[in-house]
Amino acid sequence: MKTVQGGITAAKGFSAHGAHIGIKRKRNDLAMIVSEVPALYSGTFTTNVVKAAPVIWNMEIYKHKHPVMAIVVNSGNANACTGDQGDVDNERMAMTLAKGLGIKKENVLVGSTGVIGVELPIEKIIKGIEENICHVKTGYEAGRLAAEAICTTDTFTKEVAVEIEIGGKTVTIGGMAKGSGMIHPNMATMLSYVTTDVAISFDMLDQAVKDSVEDAYNMISVDGDTSTNDMCTVIANGMAGNDIIVEEHEDYLTFKKALDYVNKTLAKLIVKDGEGASKFIEVNMYGTRSKKEAQVLAMSVITSNLVKTAFFGNDANWGRVLCAMGYSGVKFDAKKVTLKYESIAGTIDLMVNGVPQKFDEERAFDIIKEKEVTVNVFLEEGTSKGTAWGCDLSYEYVKINGEYRT
Amino acid sequence: MKTVQGGITAAKGFSAHGAHIGIKRKRNDLAMIVSEVPALYSGTFTTNVVKAAPVIWNMEIYKHKHPVMAIVVNSGNANACTGDQGDVDNERMAMTLAKGLGIKKENVLVGSTGVIGVELPIEKIIKGIEENICHVKTGYEAGRLAAEAICTTDTFTKEVAVEIEIGGKTVTIGGMAKGSGMIHPNMATMLSYVTTDVAISFDMLDQAVKDSVEDAYNMISVDGDTSTNDMCTVIANGMAGNDIIVEEHEDYLTFKKALDYVNKTLAKLIVKDGEGASKFIEVNMYGTRSKKEAQVLAMSVITSNLVKTAFFGNDANWGRVLCAMGYSGVKFDAKKVTLKYESIAGTIDLMVNGVPQKFDEERAFDIIKEKEVTVNVFLEEGTSKGTAWGCDLSYEYVKINGEYRT
Repeated sequence: MKTVQGGITAAKGFSAHGAHIGIKRKRNDLAMIVSEVPALYSGTFTTNVVKAAPVIWNMEIYKHKHPVMAIVVNSGNANACTGDQGDVDNERMAMTLAKGLGIKKENVLVGSTGVIGVELPIEKIIKGIEENICHVKTGYEAGRLAAEAICTTDTFTKEVAVEIEIGGKTVTIGGMAKGSGMIHPNMATMLSYVTTDVAISFDMLDQAVKDSVEDAYNMISVDGDTSTNDMCTVIANGMAGNDIIVEEHEDYLTFKKALDYVNKTLAKLIVKDGEGASKFIEVNMYGTRSKKEAQVLAMSVITSNLVKTAFFGNDANWGRVLCAMGYSGVKFDAKKVTLKYESIAGTIDLMVNGVPQKFDEERAFDIIKEKEVTVNVFLEEGTSKGTAWGCDLSYEYVKINGEYRT
Repeated sequence: MKTVQGGITAAKGFSAHGAHIGIKRKRNDLAMIVSEVPALYSGTFTTNVVKAAPVIWNMEIYKHKHPVMAIVVNSGNANACTGDQGDVDNERMAMTLAKGLGIKKENVLVGSTGVIGVELPIEKIIKGIEENICHVKTGYEAGRLAAEAICTTDTFTKEVAVEIEIGGKTVTIGGMAKGSGMIHPNMATMLSYVTTDVAISFDMLDQAVKDSVEDAYNMISVDGDTSTNDMCTVIANGMAGNDIIVEEHEDYLTFKKALDYVNKTLAKLIVKDGEGASKFIEVNMYGTRSKKEAQVLAMSVITSNLVKTAFFGNDANWGRVLCAMGYSGVKFDAKKVTLKYESIAGTIDLMVNGVPQKFDEERAFDIIKEKEVTVNVFLEEGTSKGTAWGCDLSYEYVKINGEYRT
């Protein structure tokens, strides 16, 4: 596996464009992705009961296994909590792009991200799609424009692409994402788009995507709120020409490993771009009965406001980590826990086999004050492990989220 | 029902004391409550898997239905994550008070609140108990001393007492509590102690306590973290002389209503004392399939960082309320939701039957900027309702929690 330049236009047969059509004041707000040939589509959808119109639209396409040939995304407005009008507007977005490309509306995925509860400026969007279809093209620069256009309050675009070899053929996977939470979270749904030219069966693609999302996007937390618009989208058009992957053999594992890399990279970029976040935190749980339990424990720690504020204050207040593990719902023996903090400045033992350690506060401070800190917890319940990623909770977070609309 | 002066010494046969014994630098840190006659004990215990030593101790007493004659509580140290030594120290606290009163250790409940992961200064505590037993007395001033001594970072003591009539006899219920979260949350477990002279069977007391806690302490949120030490304790000594309550008849309902009042009052005082909190928020859900669903929805809203920061910023960012309801796990039709914000300054409609309302931002600001704001949500799923209480998320919260130990 090697990383290559670009994002969603890195794989064969994918073109894109991003433009400013006036939903937002200045920055690009319309992205389009087109596949030269029909692509298989797998993805995950927000678990929020309140689902934005584009989420419901895409779920239908996924359910019917319609091939996908294009994706249109607007930023600046989430088209969520917009009643029946929201569904009508969403369909018009899909229809406009479909018409322009000479395909059917059910071959077009839609995405929206931005403010909740305000109707889409649909005429602007229709005009914007019509005027910009001609600009859709291949090449990494076109991918970058699209990556910019899905951003809301992100401070940098999030792109990654890798190449692997499958049966002598070069397969490429590329992706782009936008951040969640931290700044104006109503405008900051988690969206991720991954394109690949791998040839694979629907079932195998679907399995790889579901597993990969579990260990990537579902293991990050910025502020614990699940948006109405969150979606992860993966489309595969088969243009790499490899023997089609139809079972869980070596080729599948090669593809899955690369997909995991792409998704985890995008997920971590989202966390790192949490504005107001001053620190990137990785939490590893070792010695659990299952990976799931390790992940539940790690997520409970990374979402705790008390843990997050302690890290913001560079404070080795490790009791909060134990406390957050304790209310996660996972059973474990606290008298067997070993807990360490680690960064490039070193490692410090805080609890060893359930016994609190007397430690040098200054040394702890030096370790925690780094920009990336790892919390390592060792239990004695089993042999599984799991990891979650998050950030601290800062004044900036409160400021940004408290003062956005007023 | 009428409110009366005092707290845990308001009911017949209860005496108390609070003193400074040097665990904390200056403020009182040892509280004792004594019942003249053996009392029935019911309570609830933290659901955190990591349970502090006193929680485990009291759970045993509850399980065996031992009568309770005394309670000893220290603040300044939680005796949590302290390994086997923690259990030994806890037992010594109970034994010391039992010896001084000439009762058995299994008739003594223990409570601790403060820093996690540091061993108790047990010699100080033993000496403190021995020297202060002689000061335990009746009267509201003694109750106040105890209420002070269980505080950690609370800015005021939390006490309430009410009188009711049951079969011509005056029954009194009094209580005290200490706050959770917001300031130095490691030192701020939620503890609540309620004493009553009602004559009641164990089963009826237990049922009343469990139900009452569900609607009071379990419906408040300061920062979403469940401490290792949280406990609600209710003891009833029967000295009011009413006909013993053994079934769910009128007397029970009278008692239950008064107990609810005491518990809800203490719960709301805890929320109001969240330092860093600038606003008290009540969330009402109407029209749900069950009370439980209403409570789950209301708690999801009140614990959302995005909702809390929006209120801190006096921002009518109501999409966040819908979003938090949506990920609560409760199913509902967003296209039938009506949402209003209310305060003494008036009421404003934000969504009516699923349709976002155009509203005057200035008027919304005027309503939200009040110290107490109510969020009223009307669903069309059923006829039940539920309420939760919480506060906003402020700079102060981050400051206090980020800078506590460094």
